Amino acid sequence: MSADPPNPITPSAGTPLTGEEDIIQGYLAPLASAMPGAHGLQDDCATAAPAAGCEFVLKTDPIAEGVHFLPGDSAADIGWKALAVNVSDLAAKGARPFGYLMALSFPAPPGRKWMADFARGLGEAQNAFGIGLLGGDTDRRPGPLSITPTVIGEVPIGRIIRRTAARPGDILCVSGSLGDASLGLALRQSTALAKGWRLMPHDAQTLIARYLRPQPRLALAPALLAYARASMDVSDGLMKDLGRMCKASGCGAVVEHAALPVSSAFAAVRAVAPDAAARALFAGDDYEILCAIPPHAYTAFAAAAADTGVGVTRIGEFIDGTAVILRDEAGRPIAPSSGGWDHF
Amino acid sequence: MSADPPNPITPSAGTPLTGEEDIIQGYLAPLASAMPGAHGLQDDCATAAPAAGCEFVLKTDPIAEGVHFLPGDSAADIGWKALAVNVSDLAAKGARPFGYLMALSFPAPPGRKWMADFARGLGEAQNAFGIGLLGGDTDRRPGPLSITPTVIGEVPIGRIIRRTAARPGDILCVSGSLGDASLGLALRQSTALAKGWRLMPHDAQTLIARYLRPQPRLALAPALLAYARASMDVSDGLMKDLGRMCKASGCGAVVEHAALPVSSAFAAVRAVAPDAAARALFAGDDYEILCAIPPHAYTAFAAAAADTGVGVTRIGEFIDGTAVILRDEAGRPIAPSSGGWDHF
Repeated sequence: MSADPPNPITPSAGTPLTGEEDIIQGYLAPLASAMPGAHGLQDDCATAAPAAGCEFVLKTDPIAEGVHFLPGDSAADIGWKALAVNVSDLAAKGARPFGYLMALSFPAPPGRKWMADFARGLGEAQNAFGIGLLGGDTDRRPGPLSITPTVIGEVPIGRIIRRTAARPGDILCVSGSLGDASLGLALRQSTALAKGWRLMPHDAQTLIARYLRPQPRLALAPALLAYARASMDVSDGLMKDLGRMCKASGCGAVVEHAALPVSSAFAAVRAVAPDAAARALFAGDDYEILCAIPPHAYTAFAAAAADTGVGVTRIGEFIDGTAVILRDEAGRPIAPSSGGWDHF
Repeated sequence: MSADPPNPITPSAGTPLTGEEDIIQGYLAPLASAMPGAHGLQDDCATAAPAAGCEFVLKTDPIAEGVHFLPGDSAADIGWKALAVNVSDLAAKGARPFGYLMALSFPAPPGRKWMADFARGLGEAQNAFGIGLLGGDTDRRPGPLSITPTVIGEVPIGRIIRRTAARPGDILCVSGSLGDASLGLALRQSTALAKGWRLMPHDAQTLIARYLRPQPRLALAPALLAYARASMDVSDGLMKDLGRMCKASGCGAVVEHAALPVSSAFAAVRAVAPDAAARALFAGDDYEILCAIPPHAYTAFAAAAADTGVGVTRIGEFIDGTAVILRDEAGRPIAPSSGGWDHF
């Protein structure tokens, strides 16, 4: 988080490391010490098997400097984020984290301090998410610093929560608050913004932390497993990801604009800069959970979610058809003005 | 292979694709059709479970343009190689391929023809190796085209063959032939070389194919499972990888230089260019299997290997100590002159 000093030239901080073995045995092997299947990172492959009655849930999502994080972000924050954005998918699927592999590509030999900080951020994420390193690869190549985790979780066999199963009539819910990470990124890119937005230092820190240290909603996974019909995480913006869920499920949805959950920091920015409001609809990197709850299960789901301390808000419902409709407080459709994040 | 025309500017061949969904549903989903856990690539995560009595064996090893393949290599060859270099590790561990995830990073939107060719190469590799696509991610970023598969295989629980278990007295064997891929790469980089080496076109094609289309030695996996004490694939050069196996196993090794298996094409080059001989010791990309066979099991192992059609050659033995010694035909030590491939 922001307590970590940024490294101006990633990943060169500290004296450079001179071999793959130095990186693996010096910095990565300790992250694998609790995983018997990692074999101390001394072998070519890892082994893993799900618990009895469970199957593995698998996801790979790389992050790269300049695309998913900024050159000035601290190595510890980068390590955290690499795991968090992947574990977020496990949470949305109702899975319990098990382990991960990680491919690292460096444009130049990483410095010792950078590697130590990076490993510390990974270790903090491992502890927070209950996951350990199983194996991976380290190479050097031109281009941005790139980190490609493949995370593995466990669910009871056949119980994974798909994004493809929402039905008309299901209640549309989202966890936490929307748009914060996008404001945090904007603040990282321009420190003058905090002044323009008249933000309290605490609010600015909160928004920046949402960008640097996303929190996978793992606490919600059991409630999702018990009650959700469909679920996915919001990484590319609410409207874009909801559109994907609707398309995959063969239905439409209505979103009540006034119901969108935003943080007090977000509301403070919006009060000064009304244009910011659209970020709750279209901005990425929030890693909240979007889910479809059958109406009969909604009360129980809301109660189970409340017990976890992660807020869940009812923001609309799924409908027949294919349209994804945003409505104002009078029930009138509002035309969305942006499509969310696409890499192409 | 060389039948595929090279794409001069990777990956731009054909009209560009304009969205992640076009790439995923148009070109990648067909590669996942035989994998129920891939869910048609319509969900955020895949599911997978090993067969009863088995555990998963996991490996991730990225390939990038300019580092692991050349800008002129065909998209089909790149797809093949991305899978082959990873599946090679499964073979060395005695594992049966199960499935894979794949993260793709494009510097520019890929062309339709490039994607079609790339998917064809992946499909050919899938069929050859008995593996299917489970999931992955596609993004766009600066830097080289990069492909990061995570492959999954199966072995009976506890039976994975480690690189860490060789013992003094074990017989050192290697599959196939050494140094070919390195000559193939040299031929790709300079077509004039084939003339200088007075190579028959067929020999040149053989060497280039060894570079472009490495063949994981999956046929050997059952013989390794039955008889090998330790095993790994040779990706960074025989002497370097043998050094790793010795270090991990806590022993040394003697290699008889005259015993090194080379192809007739390699021998033809060496006859004209004696310097090429060192490539059998130090050059990477061969993806042969290096293994330690207990003396009592050697005859049975050699017979089982012969039945597969993949040649296996006895090239030395493991010894007490830590030294890796190369010997000439008179039994005199030869000083190695290069250390093999290191990314740093």
